[in-house]
Amino acid sequence: MDKPNGKFVTIEGSEGVGKTTNIEFIQSYLKAADIPFLLTREPGGTPMAEELRELLLCEREEPVSEDCELLLMFAARAQHIQQVIKPALQAGTWVLCDRFTDATYAYQGGGRKLPLDKIASLENLVQGTLRPDLTLLLDVDVEVGMSRAKGRGKLDRFEQEKLEFFERVRQAYLKRADQEQDRFRIIDAGCDLAEVQQQIKIALDHFSDHLMDRR
Amino acid sequence: MDKPNGKFVTIEGSEGVGKTTNIEFIQSYLKAADIPFLLTREPGGTPMAEELRELLLCEREEPVSEDCELLLMFAARAQHIQQVIKPALQAGTWVLCDRFTDATYAYQGGGRKLPLDKIASLENLVQGTLRPDLTLLLDVDVEVGMSRAKGRGKLDRFEQEKLEFFERVRQAYLKRADQEQDRFRIIDAGCDLAEVQQQIKIALDHFSDHLMDRR
Repeated sequence: MDKPNGKFVTIEGSEGVGKTTNIEFIQSYLKAADIPFLLTREPGGTPMAEELRELLLCEREEPVSEDCELLLMFAARAQHIQQVIKPALQAGTWVLCDRFTDATYAYQGGGRKLPLDKIASLENLVQGTLRPDLTLLLDVDVEVGMSRAKGRGKLDRFEQEKLEFFERVRQAYLKRADQEQDRFRIIDAGCDLAEVQQQIKIALDHFSDHLMDRR
Repeated sequence: MDKPNGKFVTIEGSEGVGKTTNIEFIQSYLKAADIPFLLTREPGGTPMAEELRELLLCEREEPVSEDCELLLMFAARAQHIQQVIKPALQAGTWVLCDRFTDATYAYQGGGRKLPLDKIASLENLVQGTLRPDLTLLLDVDVEVGMSRAKGRGKLDRFEQEKLEFFERVRQAYLKRADQEQDRFRIIDAGCDLAEVQQQIKIALDHFSDHLMDRR
């Protein structure tokens, strides 16, 4: 029997939802289940793609056009898929990825209001049929998240604008989750860490059971 | 009366067809005709796009995937259009550009055999309706060009392979020129420099006359 392909699991959510801590938890889960996996992130994941990440995130005088930013994001993604994600999946290794294309829909599409059909056409061009098998969306009320991050103080005007941006990001994520319910699991990241991790465990158990059923 | 938009003139052709010398000639022509213009190049043309050019052209251990290369090319192009080309044209300045999207069709499409529909969909996404008004294609027999460059010696196996690549580039350029005859002028770059420049002068005269007729 051929070795089955690895599974492609992505973790999504905006700043401050506790991605780092929960990614550690998912790694422990996979280790305990004896599932070979690799952890990677976007933008980035290869030396070339990390160079592009630097280019994208660094401060510069020249304003970077929205199209340029979007294409750089997908250029890094193309490289990441070709060099890391596809070879791993084909070798039977699971890929655990800190953000993927849903983040482009949420940040560039929702946050910056870029046309979603532009993103969709790049997604098809770069990914072909490749999509995550499971996406865990860590979701928390934006105001709660931001207030928490700054110690529950009142938000100033600049933070208020940021709040609107992150509200659009959140809504775009939730819309994606609603449109692709089979792939997404929404994790309420507003609860205690123990409860959050219980939800993640249930989602991963459910996903694994489903895989066992199909063998 | 509103100031008319500048014209977008591109110079195309593979290595060794004499682009540099002939671009100088075109600049003299435009200066003599009192036409305000700026000279730029692709990939590149802005600090950010030049950084991407470096990234594209530098040697690296990691093989760069074809999709990544293509997207980087168009990311640089998006930035170049937004920051340089469109503002200049809108201000009535002509833009003289050393290579543009036809080079992507020729090198990535013809040379590397990337699907042309991929290039076309990125062209539409990034450029909208923007296309050059005039494209001068400097064309020369590939074997003649390469033999000239190495001093008319016989080509070795590696050069023979390069020859096939540049033959595909040339044919892709000629096919573009055939498909868009209104925009392209093919310049036979195999003749003496004086004759080449005479052909370029005629093409530019014709283009200018045509503009005058339309006012």
